[in-house]
Amino acid sequence: MAAQTNKQAFSGIIPPMVTPLLSDNLTLDVKGVQHLVEHLVSGGVHGIFILGTTGESTSLSYKTREQLIIESCKAVNGRVPVFVGITDTSIEESIHLALIAERAGAAAVVAAPPYYYGLGQEELYKYYWSLADQLTLPLFLYNMPSHTKINIDVKTVVRLSEHPNIIGLKDSSANAVYFQSLCYLLKTNFSLLVGPEEITAETVLMGGNGGVNGGANLFPKLYVALYNAAVAKDFARIDELQNLVMEISTKIYTVGSYGSSYLKGLKGALSALGIVEANIAPPFTTFDEKEMTKVIANIKEIEAEIAKVL
Amino acid sequence: MAAQTNKQAFSGIIPPMVTPLLSDNLTLDVKGVQHLVEHLVSGGVHGIFILGTTGESTSLSYKTREQLIIESCKAVNGRVPVFVGITDTSIEESIHLALIAERAGAAAVVAAPPYYYGLGQEELYKYYWSLADQLTLPLFLYNMPSHTKINIDVKTVVRLSEHPNIIGLKDSSANAVYFQSLCYLLKTNFSLLVGPEEITAETVLMGGNGGVNGGANLFPKLYVALYNAAVAKDFARIDELQNLVMEISTKIYTVGSYGSSYLKGLKGALSALGIVEANIAPPFTTFDEKEMTKVIANIKEIEAEIAKVL
Amino acid sequence: MAAQTNKQAFSGIIPPMVTPLLSDNLTLDVKGVQHLVEHLVSGGVHGIFILGTTGESTSLSYKTREQLIIESCKAVNGRVPVFVGITDTSIEESIHLALIAERAGAAAVVAAPPYYYGLGQEELYKYYWSLADQLTLPLFLYNMPSHTKINIDVKTVVRLSEHPNIIGLKDSSANAVYFQSLCYLLKTNFSLLVGPEEITAETVLMGGNGGVNGGANLFPKLYVALYNAAVAKDFARIDELQNLVMEISTKIYTVGSYGSSYLKGLKGALSALGIVEANIAPPFTTFDEKEMTKVIANIKEIEAEIAKVL
Amino acid sequence: MAAQTNKQAFSGIIPPMVTPLLSDNLTLDVKGVQHLVEHLVSGGVHGIFILGTTGESTSLSYKTREQLIIESCKAVNGRVPVFVGITDTSIEESIHLALIAERAGAAAVVAAPPYYYGLGQEELYKYYWSLADQLTLPLFLYNMPSHTKINIDVKTVVRLSEHPNIIGLKDSSANAVYFQSLCYLLKTNFSLLVGPEEITAETVLMGGNGGVNGGANLFPKLYVALYNAAVAKDFARIDELQNLVMEISTKIYTVGSYGSSYLKGLKGALSALGIVEANIAPPFTTFDEKEMTKVIANIKEIEAEIAKVL
Repeated sequence: MAAQTNKQAFSGIIPPMVTPLLSDNLTLDVKGVQHLVEHLVSGGVHGIFILGTTGESTSLSYKTREQLIIESCKAVNGRVPVFVGITDTSIEESIHLALIAERAGAAAVVAAPPYYYGLGQEELYKYYWSLADQLTLPLFLYNMPSHTKINIDVKTVVRLSEHPNIIGLKDSSANAVYFQSLCYLLKTNFSLLVGPEEITAETVLMGGNGGVNGGANLFPKLYVALYNAAVAKDFARIDELQNLVMEISTKIYTVGSYGSSYLKGLKGALSALGIVEANIAPPFTTFDEKEMTKVIANIKEIEAEIAKVL
Repeated sequence: MAAQTNKQAFSGIIPPMVTPLLSDNLTLDVKGVQHLVEHLVSGGVHGIFILGTTGESTSLSYKTREQLIIESCKAVNGRVPVFVGITDTSIEESIHLALIAERAGAAAVVAAPPYYYGLGQEELYKYYWSLADQLTLPLFLYNMPSHTKINIDVKTVVRLSEHPNIIGLKDSSANAVYFQSLCYLLKTNFSLLVGPEEITAETVLMGGNGGVNGGANLFPKLYVALYNAAVAKDFARIDELQNLVMEISTKIYTVGSYGSSYLKGLKGALSALGIVEANIAPPFTTFDEKEMTKVIANIKEIEAEIAKVL
Repeated sequence: MAAQTNKQAFSGIIPPMVTPLLSDNLTLDVKGVQHLVEHLVSGGVHGIFILGTTGESTSLSYKTREQLIIESCKAVNGRVPVFVGITDTSIEESIHLALIAERAGAAAVVAAPPYYYGLGQEELYKYYWSLADQLTLPLFLYNMPSHTKINIDVKTVVRLSEHPNIIGLKDSSANAVYFQSLCYLLKTNFSLLVGPEEITAETVLMGGNGGVNGGANLFPKLYVALYNAAVAKDFARIDELQNLVMEISTKIYTVGSYGSSYLKGLKGALSALGIVEANIAPPFTTFDEKEMTKVIANIKEIEAEIAKVL
Repeated sequence: MAAQTNKQAFSGIIPPMVTPLLSDNLTLDVKGVQHLVEHLVSGGVHGIFILGTTGESTSLSYKTREQLIIESCKAVNGRVPVFVGITDTSIEESIHLALIAERAGAAAVVAAPPYYYGLGQEELYKYYWSLADQLTLPLFLYNMPSHTKINIDVKTVVRLSEHPNIIGLKDSSANAVYFQSLCYLLKTNFSLLVGPEEITAETVLMGGNGGVNGGANLFPKLYVALYNAAVAKDFARIDELQNLVMEISTKIYTVGSYGSSYLKGLKGALSALGIVEANIAPPFTTFDEKEMTKVIANIKEIEAEIAKVL
C-alpha cells in the first residue's frame, strides 16, 4: 500500500453540467457551454463536473467529449475547479480523456466502474488501483450502481482510499446506510460528495462534503444557499430551501414515463428558462410538445417561488 | 376515496423485537420474551414492534406467531404501544393475525407487501386498500423491497395515505431520496418510521417520526438518546451516539458471509450480553464458534464504550 | 453423505393444477376440484402437482391448503401420482403440509426455497438437506428464481441430489444453459421436470423427464401428445403441436399488464371453457370484462384449432 | 413502416472471435488475428463475429477496434462472411465503426442496446430503428440483458423485424421461452442465432439458425459437427458431441470466482492449445498460475476426447 498523502479536499455544490447540444443532437453547442458556465460560476458554485451521467458523457462521441473538456476549461478559466468524467469501458480511453483534462487545466477526474461486464469487488479494486496509478490528476470514485450494475462496496472504497491519488467519492446510490458507513469508516481527508439533490442537506448535516446536483444547472444559487444553510445548521432556512428542491424533483424530473425523465425534464426546463437548448443525444429524445408544455408551466412557477426567497 | 380522519401519530424508537427461541430453534422462549420486553420497556422505548423481519416472522409457524403476540402484549401490559407484523402472502392469514393482535391489545398492525408473486403498483394499491378495509386496527405500510421484490412507490404510498385506516409507513429501503419524497408529499398526520438504525438521526433531523432499529434490542437507551438528540438538534450529542451506532453496525452485523449476518450477529450479541439466547429459526442457523467469539469480543468492547456516555 | 438409493423416476406431463375457488376468492370450490381432477386424469396426464405457483399456494390459508390436499388426493384416488407443494418460509409449516400429504396418499412433495430472506447457496443447501431429513415422502426441489429471489445453483442441485430422499427438480427458470448443465452433471436417477410449457418439447428432446405445464389444465391431451411426440422424436408432430402451445402462450397468458397475466389468463380461459370458475385469490383479482372478452374469443379459436389435430 | 424486403439469411456456426492481444493487454496481436482466423476458417465455420462480448469489444480502444476490423477482414479475405460488433453507448461511434466495417468488406453489423442508461422498450425501439436507418450494412440485434440491463422484448423484436435493414437477432439471454416466442412470432426471413453453446443443439432442433459459440474459438470443427448433427436430427451424434461441449462448459468456463471466468478460461485454454496468447484487457486480468494449471490440464484432456470422435 502507498503511504497516505495530504489530499486536497473539495466541498460545496459542484453541478454535474449538462452538455449543450445543437439541434442535430450530436454537435457541441460551444456558445451554450460558455453561457452555461457563466450561469454556474456567477451562481456561486464551488466547482463544475463535466462528462457525468447528467452530462450524457457516454452518449457523446470521443471527439465531442474532448471538445467539451477543452471548451469548458477555457470558459471556466480557473475561477472554480473543473472535474472531468473519464468513465469508460476501455481503460485506454479513460486515460486518454484524463490526459486531455490535465492539459486543459482540470482539477481532478471522476470515474464510475467500467459498466459492460459484471465485475467482482476484487476485480473492481484492482481496476481502480491500476487506473489511479496511471493518472496524474487526482481521481474521484463514482458510485452509480443503477447504471453500472455494480456497487463500489464500503470495504472496497476504504481499501481504495489508501491510494495517494484517490481523493474522494461521488455517490449517486441514494443509499443512506452506505453513506453513513463511509462517513464512519473513512479518514477525514477523503471527500464525500453526493449526487441526488434531494439529500444534499441531510448528507451535509451528517458530515458529507457537498452535492453534485443536477438542479444546480437551473438554479445554482438555490443549491449553494441550501449547502450553506446545512453547513450553518440553520434549519428554518434548510426547510424553506429543501421544499423548493423537492418541488423541482417532483415536478420537473418525473414528467415522462421512463428513467430518462430526469434528463429530459432537466434539459427541457433549462430551455424554458433560456439557459441552453433542450437537445438531447441518442438513445434519448427531447420531450414532445405535451410533456414540454407541462415542464415549462412547472418551471416558471418554481422560478417565481425561488425569486421570493433568494 | 374515504375522508381523511384524525390519525394517531406514533414516534420515537420502536425496536423490531427479536423472537427469543428455545434450543430447538422453533419453540418460543416465553421467559425470554418477558425478559426482553422488560429490557426494552425499562430502556425507555416508545413502542415495540413484534413479528417484523428482525423478529423472523416469516420463519415462525402460525401457532408460534400467535403465541408471541399474546405473550408480548401480556408482558408489555399497556406500558407502550405494541405493533404487530401481519405480513403474509395469504390475506386470510394476515387478517387472522390482526384479529389475534387486536384481542391481545396491540395498538396497530404492520404489513409488508405479499412477497411471493411479483405485483404491479396498481395491484399492490388495491391489495393494501382492501386489506385496510378489512382490519379494525390501524395499519402501517412496510416498505422492504430487498425482501419483497417490490418497492411501494411514492405515488402508491401517497394514494394509500388517503385511507382512514392507513396511518403510517415503516421504510426499510435505506433510500434517502424515497424518504425525502415522502416527507415532501405526505400530509403531516402520517407517521414515517425508518428501519436502518444507521440513518435514524438524519431522518429524524429531516422530519421523520422515528426509528425501528434492531440494535435497540441490545441497547435501548442508546437509540432513545440518539432519537432525543436528533429531536433536539444537538449535534455534539448526535455525533457521539451515532459513532456508537455505527460501531454496532460495522462490528456486529457484518461478521458472517451473507445477508443473514445482521440477524445472526444481533442474536449472537444479545446472547453475549445475557439478554436472550442466540437460537435462530431455519432457514438460518446460529453463528458457529469462530464467528461467535468475534461477536462476543466486539459487543463487550462496545458495551464498555456505551457505558461511558450514557 | 448418505448413500445413493434407488430413486423412483417420474416423467411425463404433470400439470400444476389451478386451485378452483368460490366467488369469495378464498373458499375452496370442492366440486371444482373434483371436476378438474377428472378433466386432467381423463386427459391422460402422468401426475398432478397441487399447491404450486399456478395453484396459488402462497395465497391460500393453511386451512385451505390442507383441504385441497385431502380433496385432490381423494378425487385422484390413486389413478396417477399426486405431488404436493410444501413451499413455505416456515419449515414447521412445510413439514406439517408434508404430513397431511402423506396421510392423504400423495406420492411426493415439492419445495421451492424459503422466499422471504435472501439466502446464500450454502444456507440453501443446509436448509434443503435438513428439510429432506425430516420428510418421509420423497422431495422434489423447485427452482423458481423470479419468485424466490434465489437460484438453486447447479452445484447446489448436484450436492443435494446425493440425499436419498431428494429425487428430482422442477425447474421454472426457463434458463436453457442451467437445464443443460443439470442434464450433463446429474445422475440418471434424478427426475428433471420443466415448468414453462413453451420448452417442454425441446427439454424432453434433450433428455428432460417431462413438463409441469399450466396449459395442461386447459387441454391435457395437447400437452400429453406433445410430450409423446418429443419422446418419439416425431418432428412433424412436434411442430404442429408446439404451434398450438405457443398460441396459448401468446394469446392467453399476455392479455393483461403485469406478471399476473399468466394466472389471470389461465383461470379466465378455464372459465370460458366451462372447466372451473375464474375466481382468483388476493393479491390478484380476476380479469375485468374487457380483458375477459379477449381471453374468451382467443381460447375458443384455439380450442377449435386443437380439435382439428387431436 | 418500411416494406419487407428479401433479407439474406445467415446460419451455422459463427464464432464470436476472441481478440488476440500482446502482453501489454492492450495492443492488438496482428499475427494472432491471422492465425486465429485461419484456425476458424479451416475449421469450417460459417462466419466470424468480431467485437462481441467474447471479443472484449467494450474494453478495447476505438483505434484497436478499427484495426481489428481491418485485419480480420483482410485475413478472412471473403472466404466466410464477417459480422462486426458496433455496440456502443454513442450512436456516432457505432455508425463510425459500421463505416469502417463496410469499407473492410464485412457482411453485417451487430449491435446490443446502448448499455449505460436504463431505457424503456419504446426508447429502445426508436433507437434501433434510427440506427438501422443510418446504416448501409444490414443489422443484427444483439440481446444480452445480463450486460446491457435491458431485454429486447419479444414485441420489440417483432416490431423491429419490419425494418428492411434489420435482418436477425443474436440472443445471449439463454431464456428458452424467449427463444420459442421469437421462433413462433417472427417471419422466416429473419435469422435467429443463439449465443450460449450449451443450447446450440436444442435451438437448431427447434428452428434456430445457428450458434455464436465462444468454444468454437477452441474447436471449430466440434461446433460445426454439432450444428450439422442438429440439422440432420442425428440424436446419437448430438448426444456424443453435446457431451463434449458440456465438458468445455463445466471444466473451462467456471474455474474462477466471477462472471469473468468464461473469458479468462477461454483465453487460457486457447493459450494452452497454442492458438493465441491468454492476454486479456482491463478491467479483467489473465488467470493466475494456479487457475491456469487447472485450465491446461482440463483442456488437454478434452482435446484428447474430441480427437476420438472427430
